[in-house]
Amino acid sequence: MIGGGQLARMTAEAATALGIGFRVLAASPGDPAALVVHDVHIGDHDDPEAVLAFAEGCDVVTFDHEHVPTPILEALVARGIAVRPGPRALAHAQDKLHMRAALTAINVPCPAWQQVQSAAEVELFAASHGWPVVLKTSRGGYDGRGVWVVRSVVEATGVMGTPLAGDSRWLAEQFVPFTRELSAQVARSPHGQAVAYPVVQTTQIDGICAEVVAPAVGLSEDLALSAQEIALRIARDLDVVGMLAVELFQTADGLVVNELAMRPHNSGHWSIEGAVTSQFENHLRAVLDLPLGDPSVRAPSVVMVNILGGSVGELYSAYRHVFARDAEIKVHLYGKEVRPGRKVGHVTVLGDDADALLARGRHAADYFSGAIDE
Amino acid sequence: MIGGGQLARMTAEAATALGIGFRVLAASPGDPAALVVHDVHIGDHDDPEAVLAFAEGCDVVTFDHEHVPTPILEALVARGIAVRPGPRALAHAQDKLHMRAALTAINVPCPAWQQVQSAAEVELFAASHGWPVVLKTSRGGYDGRGVWVVRSVVEATGVMGTPLAGDSRWLAEQFVPFTRELSAQVARSPHGQAVAYPVVQTTQIDGICAEVVAPAVGLSEDLALSAQEIALRIARDLDVVGMLAVELFQTADGLVVNELAMRPHNSGHWSIEGAVTSQFENHLRAVLDLPLGDPSVRAPSVVMVNILGGSVGELYSAYRHVFARDAEIKVHLYGKEVRPGRKVGHVTVLGDDADALLARGRHAADYFSGAIDE
Repeated sequence: MIGGGQLARMTAEAATALGIGFRVLAASPGDPAALVVHDVHIGDHDDPEAVLAFAEGCDVVTFDHEHVPTPILEALVARGIAVRPGPRALAHAQDKLHMRAALTAINVPCPAWQQVQSAAEVELFAASHGWPVVLKTSRGGYDGRGVWVVRSVVEATGVMGTPLAGDSRWLAEQFVPFTRELSAQVARSPHGQAVAYPVVQTTQIDGICAEVVAPAVGLSEDLALSAQEIALRIARDLDVVGMLAVELFQTADGLVVNELAMRPHNSGHWSIEGAVTSQFENHLRAVLDLPLGDPSVRAPSVVMVNILGGSVGELYSAYRHVFARDAEIKVHLYGKEVRPGRKVGHVTVLGDDADALLARGRHAADYFSGAIDE
Repeated sequence: MIGGGQLARMTAEAATALGIGFRVLAASPGDPAALVVHDVHIGDHDDPEAVLAFAEGCDVVTFDHEHVPTPILEALVARGIAVRPGPRALAHAQDKLHMRAALTAINVPCPAWQQVQSAAEVELFAASHGWPVVLKTSRGGYDGRGVWVVRSVVEATGVMGTPLAGDSRWLAEQFVPFTRELSAQVARSPHGQAVAYPVVQTTQIDGICAEVVAPAVGLSEDLALSAQEIALRIARDLDVVGMLAVELFQTADGLVVNELAMRPHNSGHWSIEGAVTSQFENHLRAVLDLPLGDPSVRAPSVVMVNILGGSVGELYSAYRHVFARDAEIKVHLYGKEVRPGRKVGHVTVLGDDADALLARGRHAADYFSGAIDE
């Protein structure tokens, strides 16, 4: 797995259970996965030599993030190494303009969108679709980075004054007045088997996933099936292999797709304890072309709350309170240095009532972050 | 954790999730835990220098097996290193005569037992308690090794002709006509908190744990509580810290204790998916003196079947069949070289009906071992 973040760390746990040899390419020895995995290579994901040396001897190469440049992926393929998802599929998760064009071509509902090169073009776009406009860099954004909501041509000018990195471009999207955000995850294997996880509700704070409720409360069966159908269609038509997360806006009129991720995703962390087969195990099974596992939820409701870095630099001592207060809570800490707002862990609780579970999950997460101390 | 077997490997998964630094002392780089853990020391558990070098910088030292000599443990304690369970507690899991004496002193039901030094003494013991007699070496036995059922003084003479290793002694025990075997596991922390797992039914084949059903089917609440009470009492009175497994015989008259293990135990592997808190997580929480997690079972019935080495030297390719046949089954492979009869993995299935789950678990385990091929 290229990338040594928490997704690689949690995938490593699944690989250990399955007895699958697992090597990680991490940027630094202090990365979450590099701290725990036995077979670690240290190197940059955009250094062709580092990636090729890492991939030597691997049966399959997969990813903790979408940032490996396409030419490097193509060089791996040219050497006969199985790259899953493949470079063509991954391009849709790397470039949002590419993604919007592909989804529009297969009739997946998207917000109105357009490539723009100037604030004047944003103003024209707004003339058709109204303010505010969502401005995005087509490449390199995640966790809210590379996304701005602009309310005027002046604001658009301000945002677009920053030069774009590399071959990134500007994308304007209609602002979607959503009632909530959902995520539909599927796993798909090279020979085309796919399984769909229950559709979950996600809550973002400052562009960062904060909470997930699985399954989404009060979602009609029609909409849930529609979201799963959209995710399965994207996986098939874009030839995705491994886990695919489709982030959706629910509106008064239905569903529109916000973002794609072709890897395990924050909206699926609940599945470690909450599903029969976790997203990490199914990602491995999919990229290895093994039959996929049951994605069913194990309880009426499962809640995941992210632990964000706060005022407390040291997380361990919070265990005494959190575990004494709630003997059922499951805690995952990623071994990351605490910085304000950084995802440093998550908690999961299974039970019957989403609101009660959310209260317990929030308390634990807030205690770790130092937002509360009792 | 001293010892690099599958127990250390599965404890490592729990440590990764909790963000707890985890170092292993393994005898060989090919040991199950050494293959996956980042922080591995290679050395022998009976080499004082290797153990002391390993323990340097650890907050707590704990164990994958009971074989570390007491003087080495005492040297660690003398250096101020927390050894959990401590040498005095661990001695009861290291020497079966010591264990029998201690359990008898605290009124825990045991088979009739006696130290013996000759076949003539075995014959005298049999005169009181009948043939067959169970002969055991007091130290070094596990998975059925060091245990013989002898039916005559001739057989006893044959067994006792083999010289005893080290300070091991001969123990004679009454043969218990049990109806089934049970295991009661508890976790206990240094300040005395303890939790009891549901009592499970275990099935041994040739002295090796083959199957576990959690909770034990048809066990009366009285007997279940009695087994848990025995395990909790042993943990308290022997000052056990960490996981304790008490293996019991159920007879027409009640319960008698067969063996103790002061570490995660094969009879608790079901808890990884089947309990709110696995035995591996609770072992870590206990030895770190953190509040313990809920040991409740997550389904009406959970079945674990060991995968024993068979005719097939390579396990991976069985995944295609096993996973295609049963999308819910959970497989754990330990990375061990396959040898006939060796524990190389296990499978777990959760559901409603123990018999149906056992059939599924046995099929998968038999397919891995090569006992069936369809």
